[in-house]
Formats: sequence, C-alpha cells, structure tokens
Amino acid sequence: MSQAKKGLDGLSIGDSRLSLVNGTEGKLIYSGYKIEDLAAHALYEEVVYLLWEGKLPNATELEQLRAAIAENAGIPDEVLTLLKTFPKDANAMAVLRTAVSALAFYDPDSENYSLDALRRKAVRLTGQVTTISAAWMRIRKGQEPLAPRKDLNLSANFVYMITGAEPAATAVDAINAYMVLLTEHGMNASTFASRVTVSTGSDMHSAIVSAIGTLKGPAHGGANTEAMLQFMEIGEVENVDRWFNDNIKNGNRRIMGIGHRVYKALDPRAAVLRERSEALAKASGNMKWFLIADNLAKLARADQYFIERNLYPNVDYFSAIALYTLDIDVDMFTPLFAMSRMAGWTAHIIEQVESNRLIRPSVDYVGPLGLAWKPLEERE
Amino acid sequence: MSQAKKGLDGLSIGDSRLSLVNGTEGKLIYSGYKIEDLAAHALYEEVVYLLWEGKLPNATELEQLRAAIAENAGIPDEVLTLLKTFPKDANAMAVLRTAVSALAFYDPDSENYSLDALRRKAVRLTGQVTTISAAWMRIRKGQEPLAPRKDLNLSANFVYMITGAEPAATAVDAINAYMVLLTEHGMNASTFASRVTVSTGSDMHSAIVSAIGTLKGPAHGGANTEAMLQFMEIGEVENVDRWFNDNIKNGNRRIMGIGHRVYKALDPRAAVLRERSEALAKASGNMKWFLIADNLAKLARADQYFIERNLYPNVDYFSAIALYTLDIDVDMFTPLFAMSRMAGWTAHIIEQVESNRLIRPSVDYVGPLGLAWKPLEERE
Repeated sequence: MSQAKKGLDGLSIGDSRLSLVNGTEGKLIYSGYKIEDLAAHALYEEVVYLLWEGKLPNATELEQLRAAIAENAGIPDEVLTLLKTFPKDANAMAVLRTAVSALAFYDPDSENYSLDALRRKAVRLTGQVTTISAAWMRIRKGQEPLAPRKDLNLSANFVYMITGAEPAATAVDAINAYMVLLTEHGMNASTFASRVTVSTGSDMHSAIVSAIGTLKGPAHGGANTEAMLQFMEIGEVENVDRWFNDNIKNGNRRIMGIGHRVYKALDPRAAVLRERSEALAKASGNMKWFLIADNLAKLARADQYFIERNLYPNVDYFSAIALYTLDIDVDMFTPLFAMSRMAGWTAHIIEQVESNRLIRPSVDYVGPLGLAWKPLEERE
Repeated sequence: MSQAKKGLDGLSIGDSRLSLVNGTEGKLIYSGYKIEDLAAHALYEEVVYLLWEGKLPNATELEQLRAAIAENAGIPDEVLTLLKTFPKDANAMAVLRTAVSALAFYDPDSENYSLDALRRKAVRLTGQVTTISAAWMRIRKGQEPLAPRKDLNLSANFVYMITGAEPAATAVDAINAYMVLLTEHGMNASTFASRVTVSTGSDMHSAIVSAIGTLKGPAHGGANTEAMLQFMEIGEVENVDRWFNDNIKNGNRRIMGIGHRVYKALDPRAAVLRERSEALAKASGNMKWFLIADNLAKLARADQYFIERNLYPNVDYFSAIALYTLDIDVDMFTPLFAMSRMAGWTAHIIEQVESNRLIRPSVDYVGPLGLAWKPLEERE
C-alpha cells in the first residue's frame, strides 16, 4: 500500500491529452494551443471540437458542430415544468444539478454506454446546461424561459435566452471568451469526480451531476460568486485599503479568488480576464468594481504573506467582475462556470471510458480493533 | 509529481476510523467490530450510531437515534409530487439521484456547512433515501406512497412502506441484516466520489447525489441487479453447467457478482449472505434461485481461471438472491444498496469535513505541444 499526500496533491492519476496546466510557469495549453491564443481567437465551439476530436475543425466541421449543439440544446417540456416548480430562492447550482439529473429520464441514450452514445450525449448536454442556466435566470424572475435558436452559437444563444433580445456583439464576445477560458483545466476536483463516477460503468448524466455538485463548492467553482460578494462587501474603491487591513492583514479572512492549488505564478486565465474585465468596465462607463478588484489584488501582490506563498488572482477573481459587468446575477456565476466546463467534463468522461479502470483507492484504518460484541442490555 | 497506479489501486488517500477492509484475509471490521457479529446481532440503527459516534449506543441512545431517523424520514410533498411526474420506466437510481438532489431545496440546513448541520442532514437523509426508494416502488405501480411510521426502525419502515401491511419479522430481520452488511466499506468509489465533492466545500446533498450516481454503475452497486438478471437468464438449475460452459469457459463474458477489487479471499459479507439467502429460500419454499447461484459459484470455485485470479463471490452475488426472495423488484436492488450505504457515506463526508483538504490530483499531459493558432479559413 502506498500513501498519497493529503488531497492527492501532486499525484498524477494517469495520462490525458486534453490540457497541460503548468502551475510553476503559469501556463495553460488545450490540446497543443496556448490559452491566450484560444481566448483571443476561438469560438467556444472551436474549443469544444478541439477537446473532443484532438484537432481544430475546418469551417465545415465547425459549422456542423455549432449546428448540432444549437439543434440539441432544447430541454424537454417535462424538465421545464420541473424547473417551474422549484423554489425561486433555491441555490442555482442545486437547481442545475437537479435539472441535469432529470434530463436523463428523457434522453434516448441515457442508458446507452457506447462511445457513440457518449458523444451524442456530450453534444446534447453541452447545449442543455446552457439552456437550463438561462431558463432558470428567467423562471425565478417570473419570466417565461426561451428556447435556444438554431442559428446562433452557444454564447450568443445564452445571451439571447437571458435577454430575449437580439444578442449584442460585445456581450457575446465576452461570454465566448469567458467560456473558452473556463472550458478545461486538467484533473480539477469536479472533473475528477466525474471520472470517479463513470469509472464504475455509470452513465454520463450521473457523471455530469457529480461534476456540478463538486463545482458548487466555494473552494472550486463557487469562488466566482464568493469573490463578487466580497467586492460588494467592500462596496467602494476608497474602502479597499481599510477592508484589506481589517480583514486580511489584521483579520483571519482570506481573499476569495486569490490563490490556487496548482498555480504558483499568475493564472494565465486571470491575466486575460483582467484585461477583458477592464475593457468591459470601460465600455459600461462604470469602473468601480474593476478598480475595487484590481486595487485589492495590488495590495495583496505587495504583501509579504501573499508573496511568500505565491498567492495570485485565479480565474474566478476577475471573471466575477466581467460577469457582473455583463449583468449576470451573482449567484449564476457558478452555473456559467459549469456551462463553460461542459466540454472539458465530457471530454474527460470519454477519455476515462476509452481506457477505464474503476477508481477505487484505499484508506488507512485508524479505529479500534478486536472489540467484542456486547448485547444492548449490558452497555452503560 | 508522483504517479499512482491506474484506478488508484492500492493507494491510501488518508486515515479513516470507520472500517477496515482486509482483502487478503477476507475480513471486514466496522469501528472495531467484526461484520459477522454485527450482521448477527445489530440493528441497522446501532451500526449507524457506531459509525457516526465511534461506539455502540446504550439502550437510551439507540432509541433516541431510531426515533430521530423515523421522525425525520418523511419527504416533503413537493418531492413526492416530483416523483409522481417521473416516467414510470425511469432508471431507479436516476430517480433516487434526482429526488435526493431536489430534497436540498426543502432542507432547512442545505446551505449550512457547520458540523452540527451536517449531522442533522445525515439523520434526515438516512431516513429519506429509504422513504424515496419505497415510494418509488409504489408510485411506478400506480399505488399511493406511504409515509414512514414513527414507531418503527428503518428496516421495518421500509417493509411497511413497500407492502402497506404490518411488517413480517422474517422480512424485517433479513432487510436489517442486508443493510448492516452493506453499510460501510472503506474508500469504495461512491464513498470516494462523495468525499471529492464535499472537499470543495460543497454541501452534503451534492455529496450524496455524487455517491448515488457513482454507485449506479455495474462495476459497483449496479452489480446486484446485474447478478440477478444473469441468474434469471440461466433460468433453471439444470442450465447452470451449460450456461457456464457456453458463456464463461468458452465465451468472453464474466460472472456478475464474482470478483472484487479488494477481496482476494471470500468476501465475509458474501459468506453471511449465502447463509441468509439459503435460509430465506428454504422458508419461501423455492430453492431455485439460490441453487442456480450456489451451483454457479461452485463451478467457478473449481475452475482454474477463477482459482488463479482469486475470484470469489462478492457482496452483490448472494444479496441478489436474498432480495429477490423477499420480493424486491430487481432494479430496486441498487437503491437498497444506496439506502444501506447512507450511514457510511454520511460518516465519511463528516470525516472529510472535519479534516478537509481539496481533493485535486493531477494528470500527465500526453497531447501535442507548441501548436500555432491557424485561422479558420486557412484550415483544410
């Protein structure tokens, strides 16, 4: 029996062709391509194709995938009806988890375990998670949800489905870049959970449901919402210094969105998102939230505690500002993370099934041994 | 970076005081007590107390826990209404996964992450998973589900809720022994999935939902259903030899319910369940299914392939016979596994939270490197 570090820190569980996360140098590569290039140029569907097929699509292949995702992004009426019965104040990730779980009832391939069926489900679920997220944003405000349009790409469809209007290019472009940046990230906890689930021979819906429930935690996808709530608590640019001194320097809180298990240098996604969120803030005419975040990050960057521990803003830090500026409800940030990560999750699930072995580690038993059974009436 | 064996085989992820699985000698211990003693003497609630508290309860403590589980085993009307809208032919584990996910909406502690709240949710969910399983068995047959009784223990409540009659002692005793045997089993895949989920700071409902989706697979909890379907395919005692020769000796199938990742000796739970299922079969006056299973196991035990690989019947093999003899629908065997495992899952979740570190391993990237972005119109 070998012994892993707590949290499986630094332990490789096997091979993957999907992404390289270089935490020391702050580099991220999806199937050969630098994240900076993809964020600048790629449509989300292009990255989906890259992860699923291992290469960039040509124009025909890209249009086929875009159309397939758009045409299959609708959710059954039964699931829409369910969504309408959920409490309006329910946790948005619990809603997504439950709705995706229910999608399995109506998916013609839900109990089909062939690789072809996995690929069909990956196409459907990638669109459907976006549709559910948009539908929930409307339903809980008493608005009717909108069906996805067949002519749009997924980012445009999302913007259309939340606003009901012809999607504005700035918003679509920002959502697309966000989705590209969040698509895939090695053996993170939610991806790992989906692999553990499917390793028992379980189905793709179960695996995605595990991933959503795992992403929900504040130490993972929940961090973008937590980061924004913290910026809102600070409230004004002139409060940043005092807030930092009271809560961080002389308090025992940590800054949500700063620090990462793997990155000991600047998260390359954070660098892109900082620029993007600054541009969005400028365009919106309201720099406040960007400046609160940026000033707080600068204070942290100059602080000995953060320097010694290599704590830098992670992907959630500036994405909170970008999404807030785009008028996304704060608690919907994590569902947006989930809809972006669908391509990565499904690619990992397929990779696991292609070369599966049940993921079943062990523990060291540290409880008592050799206790003799004592009947109830003899116990004190 | 260190490298784990595929499937994390033989890798300890840390300490646990809950159970010792000795695969070489075929021994299983829950918090100090041999599984044989617990299966012979303990009420399921006694084992729940043992796992949650680390010691056996006295009479007062046991009655308090029994009452607390029974009083909190009801499910909200909203979740009952949802269950009634699910397709009657839906996969029973997908139903359980979705219903437990929806329970979070109505649990007063669902977003309370304190240890006290975790313990309250463990009490509620342990009863509720049994109630959902029983309700689904009735709902899909067009029968009204029954609410749990406050005066019964969980095994008796389950028998009452599926039959609507005063529960027979033989059935209650058999279900209780089954539940005790299945309660806990180290770092199995579903338990591990629940720990990965909660390690991100996510909630207990998310963790149990991950566990249910992971248990669903045929290489884990789904094996009891698969084992029974295989016995039904054999159909008659006199077909066993020919079936074994055609499908196993001269075919490429494997026997469902034989072989286990950890046990290289007889699974001690299988030994108890073999006796139990034989006694139940005798009492029912129908020995056929027990004899099919037992004769098939004997053929395998005498076969060189099985001898060389240390392949013995596992917990699912004879439990299929016991549950079938008790008139449990074959596809409900896996939800019964889930309701039994609730105490183990919740105990592990609490153990994880008490000493948490994000479970976040790594992978070796084996994809291409250094590819230059090429605009869409330049791709072939």
